[in-house]
Amino acid sequence: MPGFGIDAIHQAARRLTGHVVRTPLLNSPVLDDLVGARVLVKAECLQLTGSFKVRGALNALLTLDEDVRRAGIVAYSAGNHGQGVAAAARLAGCPAVIVMPRHAPRVKVDNCRWWGAETVLYDPRTEDREEIARTIVQARGMTLIPPFDDPRVMAGQGTVGLEIAEQAREQGLTPDTVLVNCSGGGLAAGVITALGHALPGLAHHIVEPAGFDKMARSLAAGRVCANPRPPGGLMDALSGPVAGARPLAVLRPYDVTGLTATDEEALAAMGTAHRLLKIVLEPGAAASLAALLSGKVDVRGRTVALVASGGNVDPAVYRRAVAD
Amino acid sequence: MPGFGIDAIHQAARRLTGHVVRTPLLNSPVLDDLVGARVLVKAECLQLTGSFKVRGALNALLTLDEDVRRAGIVAYSAGNHGQGVAAAARLAGCPAVIVMPRHAPRVKVDNCRWWGAETVLYDPRTEDREEIARTIVQARGMTLIPPFDDPRVMAGQGTVGLEIAEQAREQGLTPDTVLVNCSGGGLAAGVITALGHALPGLAHHIVEPAGFDKMARSLAAGRVCANPRPPGGLMDALSGPVAGARPLAVLRPYDVTGLTATDEEALAAMGTAHRLLKIVLEPGAAASLAALLSGKVDVRGRTVALVASGGNVDPAVYRRAVAD
Repeated sequence: MPGFGIDAIHQAARRLTGHVVRTPLLNSPVLDDLVGARVLVKAECLQLTGSFKVRGALNALLTLDEDVRRAGIVAYSAGNHGQGVAAAARLAGCPAVIVMPRHAPRVKVDNCRWWGAETVLYDPRTEDREEIARTIVQARGMTLIPPFDDPRVMAGQGTVGLEIAEQAREQGLTPDTVLVNCSGGGLAAGVITALGHALPGLAHHIVEPAGFDKMARSLAAGRVCANPRPPGGLMDALSGPVAGARPLAVLRPYDVTGLTATDEEALAAMGTAHRLLKIVLEPGAAASLAALLSGKVDVRGRTVALVASGGNVDPAVYRRAVAD
Repeated sequence: MPGFGIDAIHQAARRLTGHVVRTPLLNSPVLDDLVGARVLVKAECLQLTGSFKVRGALNALLTLDEDVRRAGIVAYSAGNHGQGVAAAARLAGCPAVIVMPRHAPRVKVDNCRWWGAETVLYDPRTEDREEIARTIVQARGMTLIPPFDDPRVMAGQGTVGLEIAEQAREQGLTPDTVLVNCSGGGLAAGVITALGHALPGLAHHIVEPAGFDKMARSLAAGRVCANPRPPGGLMDALSGPVAGARPLAVLRPYDVTGLTATDEEALAAMGTAHRLLKIVLEPGAAASLAALLSGKVDVRGRTVALVASGGNVDPAVYRRAVAD
């Protein structure tokens, strides 16, 4: 694929160094005991903006020509991608516009504004966010940063995989299994490409909300599939309507197994991460850990890497996860 | 002081490398904005056992002669020190006995046992924990590991300070202010010695529960002081009855400012750490961040390092900290 592959991921790593956090690869002996495997948790909740999204956004931005970059970037997202794009723009010193639904949580709007982005609120019942973004792109010469279906974005997310390989090596470990949370597939495509290159023979798993496994179905069908309806559950970070065409094309050559997690399993995994790892996860970010803890895949005796992809969680949801 | 100083801390660092976690030095631009300073958070909640305590315990253990070590170690603690000693013993492959009150939370007893330690439960109304520990030491040839009043323990905790200096340098930063949570003073003595050596001119602050600032009063009086009564609040990690004589002797030559935090301020700081840093803190571990956030010290424009010393928190207390 033009612009994407292991070389593009290495280039992205060079671009991002010093701008984003090299998040730790955490381990808990108690968690290992619970799962029956060595579990390495890439804590992207500790990334700037509380999720991995700033990696892809900043890589995409830094590949733009200087004059294009100066005009700024646009994203439509009420979630982690919006904050990632806002932060990337601030880090690169260019303007950003984030298009968000009028009912988006106040804190998400405020976060984007804190990073210096302009927010444009729309009514999802009567307006089309893509059309609004297109209008801004045309009127102001800005560049749209897609959330996942983009080689530069996938390459940025792939730096998570490079770091997992490096940090495991520093700890004297060789992962033989990886689990990645998956929605559009940008993170999964990037991480599996990076790790598949560093660790041949690795078993690849993507994890999606139960009943809404659009990427697993896309891989089985050999074409992009959509969810039957919006998931509407707790895992909003994994609730996009459709799998990405480019991520699907990247993942197809790999032997990828699709796993799922329910909301209850994700809440339990958030509680386990709280108790044993002392990190704050959002439900969608806990999907991989949930799949492991609820025995969706046999990893006994293996060395498993997983991406804890974000920590932007509603307080009321978090309180449910932290049970007595 | 025999056995303690910057050289002892460097020796401890060499002993501990590969056994304990080099925890990350976290930063949040939003937190920086809130405080008006660059804030570097040493996340010892991500340490093995969820607190820094394993560092001092393991350093003390590894300085013992082989045959003494093989006989094992003893601690009396219902808290983080007990878990730290249990984990240190497991890492070094020797037995451990943890003496705990009968009413200690089940999870703390279970954690010590998970690490392979034997637990001895006593009735604090009728029995004396020091006497019980002494009996075990004599009968079984084991070595008592004190929680703070010990040069080897202080040296182990000092490795937190070495890492702060190294990690700040890696980020191109030079802290000019440090805040350390303080109870007996082992962590404060170690960190301030390590950082005072690496960063001359550093402003040193210890943070204690409001009304129970035994170390600040000890520093002012030039002798060991006790708290008027047990604090009984949420900051159990900072609730020991008396300041350590050796930590006091180490801290006296420094110009140390005593700060305090209330339970409510600690809860608010836990919420801020949750929201902006995505780490789980216990109330006592949030004291330094609480002092910063509630403006107990003017740090505008400065580069502040603080130790987020642990994350072993009661679920009900944590739910109070995670407000809407």
